[in-house]
Amino acid sequence: MKTMKWKNNKLILIDQTKLPDELSYFTCENYKDVIVAIKTMVVRGAPAIGVAAAFGMVLGDLAGENLDQVAEEIKTSRPTAVNLFWAVDRVLESENPLEEALTMYEEDIETNLAIGKNGAEIISDGDTILTHCNAGALACVDYGTALGVIRSAYNEKKDIDVICDETRPLGQGARLSVWEMQQENIPVKLIPDVAAGYLMQKEEVDKVVIGADRVAKDGIVNKIGSLMIALAAKRFNVLFYVAAPLSTFDHDISIYDTEIEERGSEEVTRYGGSRICPERTEVRNPAFDIVPKDLITGIITEKGIIDPEKFDEFFEKLKE
Amino acid sequence: MKTMKWKNNKLILIDQTKLPDELSYFTCENYKDVIVAIKTMVVRGAPAIGVAAAFGMVLGDLAGENLDQVAEEIKTSRPTAVNLFWAVDRVLESENPLEEALTMYEEDIETNLAIGKNGAEIISDGDTILTHCNAGALACVDYGTALGVIRSAYNEKKDIDVICDETRPLGQGARLSVWEMQQENIPVKLIPDVAAGYLMQKEEVDKVVIGADRVAKDGIVNKIGSLMIALAAKRFNVLFYVAAPLSTFDHDISIYDTEIEERGSEEVTRYGGSRICPERTEVRNPAFDIVPKDLITGIITEKGIIDPEKFDEFFEKLKE
Repeated sequence: MKTMKWKNNKLILIDQTKLPDELSYFTCENYKDVIVAIKTMVVRGAPAIGVAAAFGMVLGDLAGENLDQVAEEIKTSRPTAVNLFWAVDRVLESENPLEEALTMYEEDIETNLAIGKNGAEIISDGDTILTHCNAGALACVDYGTALGVIRSAYNEKKDIDVICDETRPLGQGARLSVWEMQQENIPVKLIPDVAAGYLMQKEEVDKVVIGADRVAKDGIVNKIGSLMIALAAKRFNVLFYVAAPLSTFDHDISIYDTEIEERGSEEVTRYGGSRICPERTEVRNPAFDIVPKDLITGIITEKGIIDPEKFDEFFEKLKE
Repeated sequence: MKTMKWKNNKLILIDQTKLPDELSYFTCENYKDVIVAIKTMVVRGAPAIGVAAAFGMVLGDLAGENLDQVAEEIKTSRPTAVNLFWAVDRVLESENPLEEALTMYEEDIETNLAIGKNGAEIISDGDTILTHCNAGALACVDYGTALGVIRSAYNEKKDIDVICDETRPLGQGARLSVWEMQQENIPVKLIPDVAAGYLMQKEEVDKVVIGADRVAKDGIVNKIGSLMIALAAKRFNVLFYVAAPLSTFDHDISIYDTEIEERGSEEVTRYGGSRICPERTEVRNPAFDIVPKDLITGIITEKGIIDPEKFDEFFEKLKE
């Protein structure tokens, strides 16, 4: 399953807002369509947003637009995932936008396979793994980061169970991660977000593996809810891993300086088409959590697993 | 607003499954109706379940049933809230079931007013208070425990803001607590359950006040999700209070010996009438959390606020 395809000078995306009930596609004929797709979460997940944004640049280029301006516009579509900025800048600096985007598309798949392979080492036979939101194939071009780790372990014939939490408000865990696991017959159970702490207290979870929208030297940013899971994991001595490509890394900032997107209130007040609270209820709807590095056991990348305490060392090594 | 009324030898309950969109009533003509109402959460909240169960015993008595057997049946309706057992036994041991149930009804209101008065002392002008689930008037005969504390502080003209989390899977925070606050014009915002940690990290919450279904010497049992909130509160130095009547106290057990009810999967797989995950998704749906006492700042009762570290002392004092 590929989350997106480049065909006849158009970007064709799986419409993730329709899953799991309907596998339909959203076609982007110009870069503004790509912005709409990112904003409305037709395409979501840091790596997938990055590659979609790269093709958005290509669409702008093919239409003869001013690419600096297109880049600025695409960057405003979602503020938190660093891959978006990284991908747009990479295309902007390239000589051949289409070639660069296609390279990034292929790289994303290879990166995820490498993350999966590296991450499978930390999964033991008999493990129950909790994941949050969807850091799966649908969050990337294919295969996935956190779910890529789970896929790799499963493909190595390890006997594992997966727990996906629902991930309110948009239900990416319930809708997308459960569906991905079911497609490959990986044993999976769904829990409400509120139940993760309970299962860890009862020693029913061995490891947490989640994705990241941004990684910095002092922590990560990932889907709202990640912080409370990390705190429960710390309390109950559950190993807490983050799986993310190096394109998600931001060397320059403190994670606390990340702009956290606040999304619209309808995502909270309505669910499955129904209003779930009184009319005119005011809401807060922050989309991401900051998880400080003392709560993180390791960050699984395509270049190996990093101990968050040894970040500086890792970055030095990469430069060499 | 009274959650229940005894009228013409019938127990009339607000049907809480229909709120906030519809204020309708469920009439119990016999004790089996009461069991249905408790199981399906027409009536919920530890204190309300207790008083409803007491009237269930009265209905059994009026119908000439064997009260020992009725007591056993009612006790099986929900396993976790200790008030249910306490209330049934109290009626069973009384000489006049109806008189005893009516006394408990009045006592519940008085108790909540006392909890509110005691609890208001810990609320400061300018506080933002997070609450979970519904420990409000709807969870009791009237006024509420956690929301009673908030009501009292508001009635003392303190300038407060309330944050209710949704409380998946059944949405008691979104449906019931938001509604109760709106009825009295107390400023209230709704958040998804996953966002509580974020707001505490950002120092946007001053205090947490929640209810309890059971209090023991080593902690409390309350609605699933309470544990993760308590862990976030501990991490970010937010005061974490539990408001509960002494009828919720169980001196004899460790809180870890409480039977935690697991409810049906449909509560998780469906919401607002829609399926929110693939068909045939397996789920876990534990209904309650155990919160150990090291995470609790104080327990607000009708007899004062107890430091969890001084439980033994408090119980000794009560005996005197």
